[in-house]
Amino acid sequence: MTHTRDKAGAMEERRGQRRTTDERWRTALTCIEPNKILVRGYPLDEVMGRLTFGEAIYLLLMGEVPSPALGRLMEAILVSFIDHGVTPPSTLAARNTATTGAALRACVASGILGFGRYHGGDIESCMQFLDTGLDLVRQGKTYRDAAHEIVQRAADAGEIPPGFGHRFHTRDPRAARLFQMALELEAEAEHIQMIRAVENALHEKPGKEATPVNIDGAIAAVCGDIGIPPAIANALFLISRVPGIAAHADEERVRQQPMRQIDPKDHIYDGPSERRLQERRK
Amino acid sequence: MTHTRDKAGAMEERRGQRRTTDERWRTALTCIEPNKILVRGYPLDEVMGRLTFGEAIYLLLMGEVPSPALGRLMEAILVSFIDHGVTPPSTLAARNTATTGAALRACVASGILGFGRYHGGDIESCMQFLDTGLDLVRQGKTYRDAAHEIVQRAADAGEIPPGFGHRFHTRDPRAARLFQMALELEAEAEHIQMIRAVENALHEKPGKEATPVNIDGAIAAVCGDIGIPPAIANALFLISRVPGIAAHADEERVRQQPMRQIDPKDHIYDGPSERRLQERRK
Amino acid sequence: MTHTRDKAGAMEERRGQRRTTDERWRTALTCIEPNKILVRGYPLDEVMGRLTFGEAIYLLLMGEVPSPALGRLMEAILVSFIDHGVTPPSTLAARNTATTGAALRACVASGILGFGRYHGGDIESCMQFLDTGLDLVRQGKTYRDAAHEIVQRAADAGEIPPGFGHRFHTRDPRAARLFQMALELEAEAEHIQMIRAVENALHEKPGKEATPVNIDGAIAAVCGDIGIPPAIANALFLISRVPGIAAHADEERVRQQPMRQIDPKDHIYDGPSERRLQERRK
Amino acid sequence: MTHTRDKAGAMEERRGQRRTTDERWRTALTCIEPNKILVRGYPLDEVMGRLTFGEAIYLLLMGEVPSPALGRLMEAILVSFIDHGVTPPSTLAARNTATTGAALRACVASGILGFGRYHGGDIESCMQFLDTGLDLVRQGKTYRDAAHEIVQRAADAGEIPPGFGHRFHTRDPRAARLFQMALELEAEAEHIQMIRAVENALHEKPGKEATPVNIDGAIAAVCGDIGIPPAIANALFLISRVPGIAAHADEERVRQQPMRQIDPKDHIYDGPSERRLQERRK
Repeated sequence: MTHTRDKAGAMEERRGQRRTTDERWRTALTCIEPNKILVRGYPLDEVMGRLTFGEAIYLLLMGEVPSPALGRLMEAILVSFIDHGVTPPSTLAARNTATTGAALRACVASGILGFGRYHGGDIESCMQFLDTGLDLVRQGKTYRDAAHEIVQRAADAGEIPPGFGHRFHTRDPRAARLFQMALELEAEAEHIQMIRAVENALHEKPGKEATPVNIDGAIAAVCGDIGIPPAIANALFLISRVPGIAAHADEERVRQQPMRQIDPKDHIYDGPSERRLQERRK
Repeated sequence: MTHTRDKAGAMEERRGQRRTTDERWRTALTCIEPNKILVRGYPLDEVMGRLTFGEAIYLLLMGEVPSPALGRLMEAILVSFIDHGVTPPSTLAARNTATTGAALRACVASGILGFGRYHGGDIESCMQFLDTGLDLVRQGKTYRDAAHEIVQRAADAGEIPPGFGHRFHTRDPRAARLFQMALELEAEAEHIQMIRAVENALHEKPGKEATPVNIDGAIAAVCGDIGIPPAIANALFLISRVPGIAAHADEERVRQQPMRQIDPKDHIYDGPSERRLQERRK
Repeated sequence: MTHTRDKAGAMEERRGQRRTTDERWRTALTCIEPNKILVRGYPLDEVMGRLTFGEAIYLLLMGEVPSPALGRLMEAILVSFIDHGVTPPSTLAARNTATTGAALRACVASGILGFGRYHGGDIESCMQFLDTGLDLVRQGKTYRDAAHEIVQRAADAGEIPPGFGHRFHTRDPRAARLFQMALELEAEAEHIQMIRAVENALHEKPGKEATPVNIDGAIAAVCGDIGIPPAIANALFLISRVPGIAAHADEERVRQQPMRQIDPKDHIYDGPSERRLQERRK
Repeated sequence: MTHTRDKAGAMEERRGQRRTTDERWRTALTCIEPNKILVRGYPLDEVMGRLTFGEAIYLLLMGEVPSPALGRLMEAILVSFIDHGVTPPSTLAARNTATTGAALRACVASGILGFGRYHGGDIESCMQFLDTGLDLVRQGKTYRDAAHEIVQRAADAGEIPPGFGHRFHTRDPRAARLFQMALELEAEAEHIQMIRAVENALHEKPGKEATPVNIDGAIAAVCGDIGIPPAIANALFLISRVPGIAAHADEERVRQQPMRQIDPKDHIYDGPSERRLQERRK
């Protein structure tokens, strides 16, 4: 169809008429010309060495170069998911693919496909959950009352609110760190206030063990406060998980026999003991 | 089988004997304990805000925190592939998946699978190509003679050496920028010397138009000189392509009608005109 | 966790106690023993040559050997989706993957991922749509009234009912054929009666062009009537699409140049002209 | 580019000139017209109910309706791989994807990606291996001498010939069945003769345990003898594995808790005991 319209357009042009609207399909991401690549308008060779990968990801997805504070939050968000050991199903899908001798790209694709409803989707759900609470605030409720109401709704549906609790961790160290950075970088706003209120509301529920905010929740709140929409937050999540999946696929290939049966519980960590970053890095 | 061995091990332990070797399978990437995530030994919450995403990727894949110079090269390498517009087949596979309403992870997986023999594999091939030349140098040949020999071998096989030439660009601006950074950061060594020699050898061939080094070749040479093995260079390539694929899948979802027929040649760029980074960024 | 329980179980066994429940995880599909493969209890070598692929698929997914009539419907359902030319986005994702020189498995995976919300999901949705109508019938409504009610609900939501209408065909020849077979094989029941009522209800709506039932709708109704649940119907759909995707990926590899730009509208069919099956086949 | 040529072509047509060659790209698989779908020339609605799925797959991939004997071999080949229990890595990749709540298509894609170098590639390799032997026969060697020579070459490379031996089975019942069918259907020719000679040559090697031909080898030999090229044999393999992968993904969803840790060795089969097909089926 486009094709037909195009020919018609070409004909009109030959007749000296002007097409009022260009009916080609449009993209605003990257302009390619001979010897020139403009990402959101910036020459890519100029971006190299001047923006970090995290800043360039923000530029590509959001359209503008981030402020230094936003850039630091982006890096922290991307780093926070870089790996979570051998037991996530996405990692195991990648390792089971790697043990067959498959190419790295097939292992990575297989791993990415393992972010289903129960695994990795909490950032988007939590952003929607927080927005429901913020709608109540905008209607005049206090943060405390709004939080109690949405927590109760989740409890009535038999659910833990998305962004809270963890299979392994009773206190997710990454969430604490991200909130601290948001505070220092003065990025805190209503979403973080809302998630704090929800955490308190969960705490106050009688006869329940604590389900503190996890890294999904922290990222959801921070992304909400810095204006990143849920779909882009989800893209950041996928981007951040790829290095870990690739690292496991590569380690499987290098250290293990092909075609092995992988029992996720039967492993041992033999990497370096706990160590600290050198001071200059802090 | 491991299972049986484990029970045997457990039995020995109860008998007060020690297992001489632990037969669990091993991983050196990330250690997960309650409320603690150690990536290559470093607490992940401490890495957040202290290493960039690019530096953390190097840490995860190579095992150590990169020097500042290595870190800057990593960022530049990762940025160099962040997007190449709508026409690469990997991007089109992702857009064709996105137009069906598929989840972002499915679009990204589909895009990654489009790095086949003819698309994206040149970094690894070029590293092997350069190593063949460097083997000749180690056997006593000059760089010039070694380069002429491997270029001739490629010509005899009817091939352009991997890492040279480009569908769109006669001079790849990203390659020039990466070599400049490697020079400034004093990371130049034998692989870059070899690729320069190959570029000269190609130049000297009579009756041929120039096929200058492209970004794959530049990354291959730089990775060779900073000690990144081919498989890890390939992992970096995959990681670096994911943001672009995700951005196109998201743009397809947001700006286009579902179930459209995508003609890659019938598009127009409507993003910002060429612009420059602010001085403070340089 | 299973592991810990298992060790405890092993210990009990050594103590001469019996485990009351086996806590291993369970599968009912296929039993593998040395030199023996039992699919749903049947030796696979005995199934070979005795059941067709379509019958064996039914056996594997549904647990029992189909009756001859059910077997014939299975074959027809699987055949009905075997290919739909070059323009479906799933096929284009596979071709865009194939043009990069990717392995066939990567092309097929990429194609399968292109069955998103708007492409290939209508069988499941239509089954749910028909069941909504049948619930109304069970509550005492006539088929006619139930059909009008659910058609109106779809119209109120601005939607065409799933399983009706087609981008290319005003009358889907595959749907007619499948209904005819269901009639001949005496497999017609309430779902087909319901979809007929819906088709009539759509027909009676004033000022609308006809949106006749398509092959998704026909399969949904037939699957409903022969007791195939929606998730299995969806599995049948995926299985039936793989040969077409593989055939296009292979044709792309054999007949086209690598790394081409694929315009879906710019193709021409150069295969055999229309021909008929020999009589003995009918 | 094609686009530009097309406009030029359109212009020529308007000028009353004829384009000597149509430069649109070509496909010979399926012709789509309003209300008509021709697969290799046959109306798809006519194929439904007249050809089985296996016969239609042959038609689509090979271009012609198979003879009844070829059709029966196709069905047997497709049935032979329909499932191999829970332990193949491809199945485990699919189950690890399914446990995350991912869509069936994502699970199937993930499973298909697990056919890497060491898993599922033996049909193509074995066809090439047999062809090497048949080249020697054509040069005047006996089958016996040719077999000994290619077996020795494999042994010198430290390899078991592709298509021989199995992780679980010392005698693959599917291979025996397929050879029996090829004999009964008079499809035996030089490839089966060659693989028999190889089996004997392996048998005669002193001090070695037997590595009998497996199902990959049997399919390779039969496909060779009925004129199916290696790439199409590989497509048949992928098609035949999809129902099993889908069945495991569905069983994982239905019978297991989400987000479980899947130990492939810790399972038990709880399906029907061994049973026989009814006589009418034989």
